[in-house]
Amino acid sequence: MDIEVLFTDGPITPPPRTRTLRETGAVVEFHGIVRATEGDAQLGGLFYEAYEPMARREFDRIISQLAVRHTPQDVCIVHRLGFVAVSEASLYVRVEAKHRGAALAFCGELIDRMKQDVPIWKVVRAAP
Amino acid sequence: MDIEVLFTDGPITPPPRTRTLRETGAVVEFHGIVRATEGDAQLGGLFYEAYEPMARREFDRIISQLAVRHTPQDVCIVHRLGFVAVSEASLYVRVEAKHRGAALAFCGELIDRMKQDVPIWKVVRAAP
Repeated sequence: MDIEVLFTDGPITPPPRTRTLRETGAVVEFHGIVRATEGDAQLGGLFYEAYEPMARREFDRIISQLAVRHTPQDVCIVHRLGFVAVSEASLYVRVEAKHRGAALAFCGELIDRMKQDVPIWKVVRAAP
Repeated sequence: MDIEVLFTDGPITPPPRTRTLRETGAVVEFHGIVRATEGDAQLGGLFYEAYEPMARREFDRIISQLAVRHTPQDVCIVHRLGFVAVSEASLYVRVEAKHRGAALAFCGELIDRMKQDVPIWKVVRAAP
């Protein structure tokens, strides 16, 4: 399994797939976008911070755990840090797998676990 | 809700998003890829045929039904027809929604229902 975990200060550009397997049947790409409304607040954007070494370790741990059940082929995660304006992506996840069920389930569970366990914080900035 | 359903004889190029909503929080893109193995057969690719008018009607019906529960903002489907070689995409689905749960669930259920109800057939071609 190829695993890529990247952090970037600029707009997310999905990295090219690292390889093409003849048994890949499903590629799921997820873009998490900053919305204009969070609870009752109108936002201009969100400011993201991470403790990168620990975030990488947590991603590795979560991916290893989830891979037992859903057996993805390759996983790529890009998280943006710093200020991210409304309608821009703060997160990109790509999961490749033999079957769509595994790819979709892995992607959803990975993001759920990320929000719980990975030390990435967001700071709300009010709209100007 | 913007709905696009496209059929193409050539390689799938994901169409640009039709609009950017400030309340979009999740964009899911799914690529269904032709695998080299189907059951015990080694394939060179698959040949897809559709009864397009009815396929469009069925997609509209399925999308309307699923949208009641998962409320996507926009949905785009591209299905390739004719011969699709191994490792090429035969299906592209993009779902935009406020939240990731809705986008992922809508995408998965749409494809499940498509395989059941939409008149698109595949013909297996053995590897050369």
